[in-house]
Amino acid sequence: MALSLAFTPQQELAGKMPVSLERARAPQYGRYLDEFVPGQVFIHPRGFSFERAAMLDFARTFMQTNPLYLNTDFAKAHGFTDLPASPQMVFNVVLSLGVQNDSEKAIANLGYYNAQFLRPVYPGDTVRAYTKVIDRKERGADKPGIVLIRTLGVNQHDRVVLQYERKIMVSWRGQRPPTTPVPDEPVDFPWVNEAKLELPLTGAFPAHLTGPNTYFEDYTPGDIIVHANGRTITDEHVALTYKVCNTHPLHYDRIYSQGLSGKMSGEPIVYGGLVFAWLEGLASRDVSENALWELGFTEGYHTQPSVSGDTVAGLSRVLAVEPLPGSDPAGIVTFQFIGVKNISAANALEKHGADLFIKENDKQGLGKDKIGDKIFEIERRLLIKRRT
Amino acid sequence: MALSLAFTPQQELAGKMPVSLERARAPQYGRYLDEFVPGQVFIHPRGFSFERAAMLDFARTFMQTNPLYLNTDFAKAHGFTDLPASPQMVFNVVLSLGVQNDSEKAIANLGYYNAQFLRPVYPGDTVRAYTKVIDRKERGADKPGIVLIRTLGVNQHDRVVLQYERKIMVSWRGQRPPTTPVPDEPVDFPWVNEAKLELPLTGAFPAHLTGPNTYFEDYTPGDIIVHANGRTITDEHVALTYKVCNTHPLHYDRIYSQGLSGKMSGEPIVYGGLVFAWLEGLASRDVSENALWELGFTEGYHTQPSVSGDTVAGLSRVLAVEPLPGSDPAGIVTFQFIGVKNISAANALEKHGADLFIKENDKQGLGKDKIGDKIFEIERRLLIKRRT
Amino acid sequence: MALSLAFTPQQELAGKMPVSLERARAPQYGRYLDEFVPGQVFIHPRGFSFERAAMLDFARTFMQTNPLYLNTDFAKAHGFTDLPASPQMVFNVVLSLGVQNDSEKAIANLGYYNAQFLRPVYPGDTVRAYTKVIDRKERGADKPGIVLIRTLGVNQHDRVVLQYERKIMVSWRGQRPPTTPVPDEPVDFPWVNEAKLELPLTGAFPAHLTGPNTYFEDYTPGDIIVHANGRTITDEHVALTYKVCNTHPLHYDRIYSQGLSGKMSGEPIVYGGLVFAWLEGLASRDVSENALWELGFTEGYHTQPSVSGDTVAGLSRVLAVEPLPGSDPAGIVTFQFIGVKNISAANALEKHGADLFIKENDKQGLGKDKIGDKIFEIERRLLIKRRT
Repeated sequence: MALSLAFTPQQELAGKMPVSLERARAPQYGRYLDEFVPGQVFIHPRGFSFERAAMLDFARTFMQTNPLYLNTDFAKAHGFTDLPASPQMVFNVVLSLGVQNDSEKAIANLGYYNAQFLRPVYPGDTVRAYTKVIDRKERGADKPGIVLIRTLGVNQHDRVVLQYERKIMVSWRGQRPPTTPVPDEPVDFPWVNEAKLELPLTGAFPAHLTGPNTYFEDYTPGDIIVHANGRTITDEHVALTYKVCNTHPLHYDRIYSQGLSGKMSGEPIVYGGLVFAWLEGLASRDVSENALWELGFTEGYHTQPSVSGDTVAGLSRVLAVEPLPGSDPAGIVTFQFIGVKNISAANALEKHGADLFIKENDKQGLGKDKIGDKIFEIERRLLIKRRT
Repeated sequence: MALSLAFTPQQELAGKMPVSLERARAPQYGRYLDEFVPGQVFIHPRGFSFERAAMLDFARTFMQTNPLYLNTDFAKAHGFTDLPASPQMVFNVVLSLGVQNDSEKAIANLGYYNAQFLRPVYPGDTVRAYTKVIDRKERGADKPGIVLIRTLGVNQHDRVVLQYERKIMVSWRGQRPPTTPVPDEPVDFPWVNEAKLELPLTGAFPAHLTGPNTYFEDYTPGDIIVHANGRTITDEHVALTYKVCNTHPLHYDRIYSQGLSGKMSGEPIVYGGLVFAWLEGLASRDVSENALWELGFTEGYHTQPSVSGDTVAGLSRVLAVEPLPGSDPAGIVTFQFIGVKNISAANALEKHGADLFIKENDKQGLGKDKIGDKIFEIERRLLIKRRT
Repeated sequence: MALSLAFTPQQELAGKMPVSLERARAPQYGRYLDEFVPGQVFIHPRGFSFERAAMLDFARTFMQTNPLYLNTDFAKAHGFTDLPASPQMVFNVVLSLGVQNDSEKAIANLGYYNAQFLRPVYPGDTVRAYTKVIDRKERGADKPGIVLIRTLGVNQHDRVVLQYERKIMVSWRGQRPPTTPVPDEPVDFPWVNEAKLELPLTGAFPAHLTGPNTYFEDYTPGDIIVHANGRTITDEHVALTYKVCNTHPLHYDRIYSQGLSGKMSGEPIVYGGLVFAWLEGLASRDVSENALWELGFTEGYHTQPSVSGDTVAGLSRVLAVEPLPGSDPAGIVTFQFIGVKNISAANALEKHGADLFIKENDKQGLGKDKIGDKIFEIERRLLIKRRT
């Protein structure tokens, strides 16, 4: 079937049509606390086609140094079908696709939990996302509540590429107009309970294009690694927000930001996924240049917001190392990963010492002050090549 | 035929060559009023190869939400051969390719008229552009005149993809050096008088990836739709100007801008096509997420310039709805579309009411003040899916 | 061989692992003067996959006007297999890939010499880079020394695409921690001594998409060409640094920059390769729109740093013209190319006259003052089409 239509000259119409102000409507997106119902599944809009150039662009923007994400030949020599998207890009996109349903009205992103990257995303793949509401915790009629959600991304073959949990803080709707309702129909939510990673590796990895000191054997529990460089975040973050399809106006609409009160008021806040991505890139020469895969992460908290002009830097601490059984060419390293801003990582360590590695939410219970220089904390698990 | 050339060591030469200042020349581009001759046809330089990643990048930069421009699978499911470039990108590129001949010496872009998007542009297509001078209106020896031009873009098969008219204000050359002359040879100008749109639709469109409330049936003449979010324009606009191949220094050369007097003096002005693109993206969740095609627009005016740091927002008003005859799965909706800056769309409506929808050029005749918050006005025609 | 791994729930670990501050390490990259040994060869990390969209993006970001780098059809019509990367992009990438070994600890980039572009880089090619240390000139125990290196880039078939020499100024290590050592093994360095350019040209070049006044015949030794427009560099340069894979923190880490003393202290300095690229793009309408190839350059000096907000502009002077023997459709033009900032090229010529074309390093010997407005000087050789 083809649509065929003759163009007619477009006549000017506005002047002849009286304006009826009472006919105005203002569609709202996102969801207030009252609107979340445990069990609900949201099919997120749009989807996101991954293309090689955008994948390379993401890796370079966020200063990724693992050649897997920068060099197609290197990736193929490992056994990947093609250049894989960096897991960080997949995370940024899947979370962002969900914002319109999950958190466009949220007032805080409280934490990321149990993220698992189940399979590679390749050039030409299109990822769609779903969210299931798991729990809604009310804290009284005049206080925002906490919603626990599970979100996952699937590729065009409906195979899950990433799944994770997130907690967000959301206000009651009150007198505000309702948001766009979700179509009310049962939707399958393909969360994978017994997830398995299958990587088609060659076992013969090219040398020389990665550092000599960042193999599995180079990490011992307790090691602290101070990443040398910071990255100054510029206004670029405003455009990057929707480059990954995040629709929350907090990140790109200064008029919106100026209308807020409190810590988020003023300049647009950098979307947290982008901050995580820069920190991860800055750490990559020291901890993940020889990673074969990023298994996932948990207990991820943005403890301070960042704005344009802030310089972010990071430190990693080895929490566990776990060789794979048999002749597998890699092992699992778990890192605690800390981000700071407007101070070098080395100076932050000197200034705050061991306290830098205590979760900010645990500080009060321990009688310690929160660290204002600290912006991020998480635990990450990487699959890292053995030195051959 | 192959060119074969042995490299010889490059000897330093500059020190031995005396400088002859009288040998300096300063090539100028664009065209002064005296240089426009009705009937002339300009073949615009370069051309522009559209690639999938750049198309996705454009759609994301300008916050397009219609999955047709973001999701290759979605586009193909509709019957498109591949991901189509957003018409907004095609417009930005075709206009920009023409700047070197049409408006690089223009002092104002007065209006866009009768734009028609005749066929999709796909990844791998290369677009070239032509302009024909239609009319030159002189307003006295000491005043800039007005030139009416027609511009069109063709793909690599010489098929027109977009055609439109534009009025620009241009000064007499006076004592200034002449610009680079046009080769003086007859050139065919393939304007399409009885244009027809042919879209190879499947008729079976995927649901769930677009909003449930933005189908043809959701629009009634008189409806006013206040788009929720604004977009803060950053310095990114400087680079975006030539990303679409626009060569006017007003948008990227601060030394040039500071040398001007009047409203355009100071910081580089954002190229109007980019402003239109952001406004359209901001409106897209509410009015075009379910569009199958953008037929075109007319009476488009940039009523105030924007600079880096401005936050733009928009409002749409439904002017007409027109079902297609027969069983066609779509109808035509004509919108009046208004852009404002540094005020939310909701506040602009509250502050200015019905006057926001009166063309700025008609204000004086009606005894009304112009609205300084308003930056753009246009009438757009979209082909929007019916709810199935 | 496939790696298969069951995901296990990720347990929070950090709280149970005591922090041992003495276990901190801070890996350093780059190389101090003491660490350079003539004869050493560095295999640079990562590599860089060139993709069509990133190539187009580079050409547009830096305002390239030669359609060879913007229009795939135009390039193929000339006989190129596909769109070639602009030589400027190849130079930026190859230099940047070497920064981690060559100059991440350098305090100044002293000059570029004898650059030769040996063959095109096409979409899908992956470039890797090598450096050989040629000479280390010590100037005393308390002064930085000068290292002369040769760097080259090869494609995935190990064919050299670019080779050049560079001098850098580097400090002694002193009390600072050593950098990551180079693997100590003999490495082949495929520098080409008798280089030859082979271009598969058709000889029938499309007209109309380039300017009519920029053919080989349009240049006469002594001509000075004042390029009309400047380009305001924005914060974009911070991200562009690693878009070409440059790892020097001077360009993206404000905390690092603020910790420096002297001329480089304060805001991040724009990576010189980017400055060269913008200047070249600004000149391209006047001197290289009809170039078939950029043969190379020598005596390239960045005489002043640039920062975000600076507006750069350029002037070219014809130093030599050399027709190719036989029926070849092109000739070689050598240009002296000068960059200035925060002044238009025309005003710079008026203000400084012939002195603008004297190398800044020669000024003292001639009893002349250096020109603070001047930021760059180089001699370039282009292969330019004859008018047919």
